[in-house]
This record gives sequence, structure tokens and C-alpha cells, in this order.
Amino acid sequence: MKTKMTEAIEKQINLAIEQMLNSKNIYIVSHVQPDGDNLGSILSLGQALKSKNLDVFMLKSDEIPNDFMFLPGIEYMMDYDGLGYVDVLIVLDSGDENRIGKNKEILGKANLVINIDHHISNTYFGDINIVDKDASSTGELVFEIIKSMGIEISKEIGTCLYTAISSDTGSFMYDNTSARTHEIAAELLKSNIDKSYININLYQNRSLERTKLFITALNSLELYYNDKVAIVAITQELLEKSNATMEDTEGIVSFLREISPVEVAIILKEFHGENIKVSMRSKKYVDVAKISSYFSGGGHVRAAGFTVNSTVGKIKASLLEQLKDYI
Amino acid sequence: MKTKMTEAIEKQINLAIEQMLNSKNIYIVSHVQPDGDNLGSILSLGQALKSKNLDVFMLKSDEIPNDFMFLPGIEYMMDYDGLGYVDVLIVLDSGDENRIGKNKEILGKANLVINIDHHISNTYFGDINIVDKDASSTGELVFEIIKSMGIEISKEIGTCLYTAISSDTGSFMYDNTSARTHEIAAELLKSNIDKSYININLYQNRSLERTKLFITALNSLELYYNDKVAIVAITQELLEKSNATMEDTEGIVSFLREISPVEVAIILKEFHGENIKVSMRSKKYVDVAKISSYFSGGGHVRAAGFTVNSTVGKIKASLLEQLKDYI
Repeated sequence: MKTKMTEAIEKQINLAIEQMLNSKNIYIVSHVQPDGDNLGSILSLGQALKSKNLDVFMLKSDEIPNDFMFLPGIEYMMDYDGLGYVDVLIVLDSGDENRIGKNKEILGKANLVINIDHHISNTYFGDINIVDKDASSTGELVFEIIKSMGIEISKEIGTCLYTAISSDTGSFMYDNTSARTHEIAAELLKSNIDKSYININLYQNRSLERTKLFITALNSLELYYNDKVAIVAITQELLEKSNATMEDTEGIVSFLREISPVEVAIILKEFHGENIKVSMRSKKYVDVAKISSYFSGGGHVRAAGFTVNSTVGKIKASLLEQLKDYI
Repeated sequence: MKTKMTEAIEKQINLAIEQMLNSKNIYIVSHVQPDGDNLGSILSLGQALKSKNLDVFMLKSDEIPNDFMFLPGIEYMMDYDGLGYVDVLIVLDSGDENRIGKNKEILGKANLVINIDHHISNTYFGDINIVDKDASSTGELVFEIIKSMGIEISKEIGTCLYTAISSDTGSFMYDNTSARTHEIAAELLKSNIDKSYININLYQNRSLERTKLFITALNSLELYYNDKVAIVAITQELLEKSNATMEDTEGIVSFLREISPVEVAIILKEFHGENIKVSMRSKKYVDVAKISSYFSGGGHVRAAGFTVNSTVGKIKASLLEQLKDYI
């Protein structure tokens, strides 16, 4: 159980702080398909550095999902103009360089790259690497950095950090939540944030379209192997019926895993042209990363996925065949 | 934002500890329809007192829901034999004497009644009253008592306390969660509990019947007033179709409130003989306790309910009429 940072990480943090404080300008870049931890981390660090009168630019590598438009400072997120001189580049919540998509080119331009992340798969691609696989979220590491800089947690910064940590821990429910995570949450709540407002935005903000898709999709829920495997397929037809997009499938696979006998929950997303994206979650003992690797995919023991060119019917049959030995 | 207990409550805690340590025996009683906070509080306090070699009896006032059979020590929960001498009676998580149902008679037999609760409506019916409306849960108060007694938080006690607090805060999401709540959670995680096991039992343990009822019920979701009011009715027919019971309706009304435009979520439960139980949840501004009081019910600003003799159709119409001025 993580209760504090290691000395090695603390040293990297101090090094990063020194470089940031002496920089000409700082760019902070998002990853593709940015989530709550990514955006919350960028906006809290960005606004904290701005409060030190540093020149900070926050770059998006992809569209910002509507779910996070409530974050204070979200209006800072902009596209890189392709020309700006980049002194320090900070990459947050990204296991490797490819995660920042189109902005990967900036890595070569930057005088110094700071890589802040909590993924076990991180490739240490930065000049300074603040990587802690035991941190619940990148937000947790950003909190430590901001505290180490002696910057007060404003309402704006606190809101972004709470969002980052709550998103990545499923509101303190996932295994990655540590005693330290709760200690940080306690400090954030003392910083006068409006927790109710944040939680309504994060967890009580499901659009009607998403709700409709959720209900429609669940009507076609299939169970296999004594109800240990639950599968739902999201076809283009289903999306049209609910006036929803693939982004709206969020939450479905978790709901499947919450069913008592279910050990493996699977969602099949049918994109155009026989392109199927598969996401798997397991509960207690099946290593879905192994199943995923069979299909040339990747992931974690409890959450993994892959993409194939196939049909829903075919991939379902292959998956069930593979699962036979694990379930 | 609550960060620590008041002196007055600390004084009551010390008084209670003195009495418990000098007691001949201690009975701890549940309330009717016991929930995670109630059972987690009883079992953590009961097992903590047992570790001090006190004679402790834990009484149920109702059936124990299957959801909580995983709690360590649940086998201690027993019926009162009607005869036993009661020195100290501890009532947990109960706003008034009627909450303990059939065990209310024991109140008169006890030499001393200790009332430990966090409901604002508490009637202070005990000889000693440890009542703190700012505590997230009764479990939070029990934690303070156990710590004040210098008892180490064992894995069993920690599991019960974490369950109590997590249940009553919706995994640290509800408004009642304070900085202190997170500080306690941090301490509990340090006590070597298996958080993953607890969370699977609390949140990934939805029976197939409950899942089926959930899906079937949502298919009949109705929206009114520009989607600001969501209503689902659970009829006996629906229960039969899913092979479920009324207990299995848990989670439906929260799901309704999570829909973005919804301000008031309502579930109508049709029991036999035109007996309808109505539960309402609001998100931001509607005081559902007011609506409820019109139907002689009670509750809180964001969660209230009542029971009527009527039909689903009639009560739905009356409710919509009442809501007109609030929405």
C-alpha cells in the first residue's frame, strides 16, 4: 500500500521544478482521446504554473469531450500553431510518445521534455521522468508537484485535481486508490472546491442519447459459460437508433462486470468497414491482457482490448473459443 | 466542511467509553431494513468491544440482506431471546426509537441506552447521545470511538468500517463526504483491509435478477417537463417477469438522476393492494422533502419519499401536478 513517494521520484520532481521555474516558456500537451485525469492534470499544472507568472501554453492533441467542458481553464486548451519556440514540453499521463498523436513532432523541437505519468508501461521518453506506477493517477503526481512548489491549491486547481483523481479511481473505488490518494482528496476538499458540482458533472451528466443507447444495448446482452461471460455488441444500427455515437458506449462494460456471476465483460464496437474494437474487463481471476495479446492487442490484467477486421459474429466466436481455457 | 469533531461530541464519546468498559454486558441493535452503514457499524463496534473481553451481543431487528453476508462477523447477528439481562444497549444509525422495530421493547429493559447516529432528525432518545449530523455515516463516528479506546483496527474491524462509510457516501461521492471522511478512509486502507474484495461485494455484485429488472424497468422510463422529471414504475408484473423482488429496485432511481437534463427522479413501487411506495431524488434545486410532505411523507431536500393507497396512474398524475411549481 502506497503511503508516500520514493526518494527517487522526489528528486525528479525537484529537478523538474527547477527547470520549469527557469524556463522561457512551457508547453503542456494532452494525449489523444483525453480523459478526466489527462485534462484535470494539464489544467491544474498549467494554472499553477501560470500563478508563478510563467508563460504556459496548454495544447490539445484531439477533440475535448463535452463531459469535461466544465473544468475551470478548459478555454486555455488550444492547437499548436506549428511555429512557436518550445523551451519546456510537459507530457502528462502518456505511456509513450505516440500517445500525443499529431503533437509528437513537438518532442523534437523542445529543449527539455518532462514526462509525468503513472502507467506501468511508461517508456521513460522524457529528459526528466516523473513516473510512479503506484500513483492512482497522474493528477496525484501533479498534486505533489504543486505542493512541492509551495503553490496554494486554488478552487480552480483543486477542482481540476479532484476531477483527475476521481476519474481515474472511479471515485476512489478502483484498486489503484491508496491511503495517499485519500489523504490528497482530504486536502483538496479543504481547499474549498465544490465537490457536489464536480460530481454532478462527472457522474450525473449522462446525456439522453447515451442513456437510450445504454438501455437499448443492454436489451441485447448475451451471457455465456454459466453467466461468467457477458457480451454486448454496439452496431452502427444501434447507434443510429439511439442517435448516439461510439463515445456514448462509456459505462456499459463496467455495468456488465458489476453483474454478480460475471467474471469477464466484453463490449464489441462495430465501426464502419468491418472494423471491430473489443474492450474486455475482468473481475477476479481472468487475465484479459493475455486474451487480448492473442489478438495482437494490449492492456492490463483487468482491462484490455484490441481492434480487428472482422464481423461481430466471427469475433464473438473466436473470443468465446479463447476464453474457454480461462473461465 | 467538517474536519474534526466538536468538543461536545468528544465528551459524549468519552462518557460512553467509560460506561461500556464498566458494563456487565452490551447489546448492540440494528435498525429495520439494515444497510451497509448500520451493519458495518454494529459489527466493527461489536468486534472492537469483544477484543476488550466485554460480553457483547449483536441483535438484528430485521432480515440481513444477502448483499452484506460477506461482512466479517455477520454470523454474530442474532435475535433477542426476550429474556437476557441488558446492561448497556447501543442503538446505531437510528433517528428514533421506532427504527429498531420489534426490538424497541428492549429500550425499557436497558440500564443505559447509548444512541450513536448521524441523522439530522435524531431525537436524542439515549442516555448518552453521540449524534453528529456532519458525520458522513455512523461508521465514521464508530471509527472515532474505536480510536479513542486505543483499539487497533484489525482487518475485520477495518472491513466493516470501510463498508459502513463507503455505503453511506456512495464511495465518497455524496455531499456528506468530508475531508475527515477521506482521512479516515486513508487510515482504514493502512489497516491492511482488502479494498478490492469489499468493493466487488458492494458494487460488482448485482444479481442477474436485479440486472434483468433494471433493464426491463428502464424500458418503461417516462420523461416529463422537458426531460427534467424521470419516472419509472415497478409493478408486481414487472417483478414477476424478472423473477426479482422489490429489494432489487435498488440503484434504479440513482440511475435516473444521473441523466443529464433530469432534476427529479422518481420510482413508484407497487406493492399488493394498491399500496404504492414513492421515492424521489433531486439533483440541484428541487426540494423533494416539500413535495413529499404534501403526501404526508418525509425525507431530505435531495432524497425523500412517501407511501399512499392509490394506483400507479393516479399517483403519477398527482405528483406531476405537484411538481409543476417546482420544476
